[in-house]
Amino acid sequence: MNLDFTYHNPTIIHFGKEALSNLKAELANYGDTVMLAYGKGSIKKIGLYEQVVSILKECGKNIVEVTGIMANPTWEKVKEGAKIVKDNNVDLILAVGGGSVIDCAKAISVSAYSEEDAWTKYWLQFKPVDNKIVPVASILTLAGTGSEMNGGSVITNDDMKLKMGRVFPPNVYPKFSILNPEYTFSLPKYQMVSGIFDMMSHLMEAYFSGEDDTTSDYIVEGVLRSIIHSAKIAIKNPEDYESRSNLMWSATLAMNPLMGLSKPQDWQVHMIEHQIGAYTDCAHGMGLAAVSLPYYRFIYKNGLDKFVRFATQVWGIEEEGKTKEEIALAGIDALETFVKECGIVINLKELGATEEMLPAIAESTVILGAYKKLTSDDILEILKVAYTA
Amino acid sequence: MNLDFTYHNPTIIHFGKEALSNLKAELANYGDTVMLAYGKGSIKKIGLYEQVVSILKECGKNIVEVTGIMANPTWEKVKEGAKIVKDNNVDLILAVGGGSVIDCAKAISVSAYSEEDAWTKYWLQFKPVDNKIVPVASILTLAGTGSEMNGGSVITNDDMKLKMGRVFPPNVYPKFSILNPEYTFSLPKYQMVSGIFDMMSHLMEAYFSGEDDTTSDYIVEGVLRSIIHSAKIAIKNPEDYESRSNLMWSATLAMNPLMGLSKPQDWQVHMIEHQIGAYTDCAHGMGLAAVSLPYYRFIYKNGLDKFVRFATQVWGIEEEGKTKEEIALAGIDALETFVKECGIVINLKELGATEEMLPAIAESTVILGAYKKLTSDDILEILKVAYTA
Repeated sequence: MNLDFTYHNPTIIHFGKEALSNLKAELANYGDTVMLAYGKGSIKKIGLYEQVVSILKECGKNIVEVTGIMANPTWEKVKEGAKIVKDNNVDLILAVGGGSVIDCAKAISVSAYSEEDAWTKYWLQFKPVDNKIVPVASILTLAGTGSEMNGGSVITNDDMKLKMGRVFPPNVYPKFSILNPEYTFSLPKYQMVSGIFDMMSHLMEAYFSGEDDTTSDYIVEGVLRSIIHSAKIAIKNPEDYESRSNLMWSATLAMNPLMGLSKPQDWQVHMIEHQIGAYTDCAHGMGLAAVSLPYYRFIYKNGLDKFVRFATQVWGIEEEGKTKEEIALAGIDALETFVKECGIVINLKELGATEEMLPAIAESTVILGAYKKLTSDDILEILKVAYTA
Repeated sequence: MNLDFTYHNPTIIHFGKEALSNLKAELANYGDTVMLAYGKGSIKKIGLYEQVVSILKECGKNIVEVTGIMANPTWEKVKEGAKIVKDNNVDLILAVGGGSVIDCAKAISVSAYSEEDAWTKYWLQFKPVDNKIVPVASILTLAGTGSEMNGGSVITNDDMKLKMGRVFPPNVYPKFSILNPEYTFSLPKYQMVSGIFDMMSHLMEAYFSGEDDTTSDYIVEGVLRSIIHSAKIAIKNPEDYESRSNLMWSATLAMNPLMGLSKPQDWQVHMIEHQIGAYTDCAHGMGLAAVSLPYYRFIYKNGLDKFVRFATQVWGIEEEGKTKEEIALAGIDALETFVKECGIVINLKELGATEEMLPAIAESTVILGAYKKLTSDDILEILKVAYTA
């Protein structure tokens, strides 16, 4: 079943070694006050902060800042940023960093002028955006979430122990995003491989659904194969430009609506991981990997043909002399082998979970899923496997 | 070598069985006078004309028309449309038809308010668009050119015997495009299979270049495989919604800049076909197929590894026991077999060429090309093979 869709992807992408040279021309389209949003200072280490501030000054912009944005950006941090935006009448929020920083920037954008409590309005009640929003743009330093070309904004409410994702419409997408693969060279390997699984997971969440055979399925297979190929090169040589470039662009595409057009989708892995993230603050991609392996082994019989296709088209598993079940499982095994070769952590204990947390994580997980609707007990079973992986 | 790029794809796509239901809301964003642009009446046969006019009237629009737009839209037709736009102060050009109608609508858009001769300015001198343009939107009835989500506009100047393509920037892209696969059901098989090769050719023009291994190469392989799979189903059963849907969306993607990002590209096949089209008025996709087969056999040794990859990844050719040359040629043979099974005409004589035309076509072809730069003599040799195919 090919579903109807509306697709609109207005973000302007400047990609490559000279991508930053486009910043000046882009800034001319916005007002005088720019809020820089960034994390804990890694952009200063690679010299990017200084470059960006110098361009902003050259363009005569007033600069304000929201800093210290963390891996799982909190609602507290969003409120801090929203206040700065309102107090300074900010014209553009320029997020410099990874997906967390961009997610936080979008959240600040929609929250600053909301008259209702924006957490409740946007992340709990999923209401439409009807208040003034502030344009967001990004300079990306980490490949993984795809936030640089979509409307996603995942925010953690520490008080409520809830990590909630909201996909905002195209008017909240970054107006422009600057992607230079070289910015990712100095990223610690732990974060790099976490990002690699993150992008793969986005593709698999779109892929494992329906008994469909849409153009999107073929594209997802292509991007997955590109990621697998480039990941192996980039892990050995983090300064290999071609592979880092392919990974960066694959990540942007992986979490774009483009990958799932016409398809129903899964997203159960993300729902489970969000709650693991709310309890442990683990690296997002690691949590996704930990959940994906036992989850796919739990559901594969319900989507057998698609898991067979995954095995043969993505991993090159030979079909001869095997049952469908064996082929499907060989595909998931190949995924596990790849994950381990990358150095991705898939043990929930190692990711900071305790045995006591597991029932609470299972209970609080939102149920989505395509091939099989899980119960809280099913999720607990999956978490237990991941806990001792 | 991964090249730097800027990517911006602002067109809003409404896709599916109910896509037309979005027209009313979209029209609210534009002024009162709408120019309908269409071809020779096939939109009346399928009842689409009546539906669209009824929605336009419901929205209180004044309707003017430019009709009779032909398969290779002429500069004369563009001038006719431009005059209507200027005389009526048109606010939106709504193209209803295939790629030719949309190409013509974009040409009218940029030409109406040009003070210089627009043919010379835009199609011969490739100058930037600096005059007022009129927004274009489209309702697509034929899958093939991708004009519904790009800036392409191919126009034929009959006096000069020149068919020239221009890729306009994102502000000339259709603002919105409505794609309902059901509109393609009644298309004659000849045009349908011509469109199928057209979309494949767009992908191959992006693919056969560089010794690269970019994410775009993997995506192209995926879309090609999707097209091959769906074409076989759709040719047998033209009213199979899933396959017509996949073909329609594949066509839109195939001619979008997305498919070639980070890559050098070829486009020599299109350059040769444009001149065949200028002399014979043949169906574009047929002309492309006629040229592609001898062209790829002429150049494959210069891009051997990529042709090997094409054979194995797109056509599933087994490598065992074969030389690289044999694998590469088997891939091109598989393409030829597919083309013939589809009923695509690859004989230039049958497409309306005469032996006398061939030298003139060869002489007037623009030289592009990636793996090998052709001479006019090379092109003549290729044309002679196609003439007796």
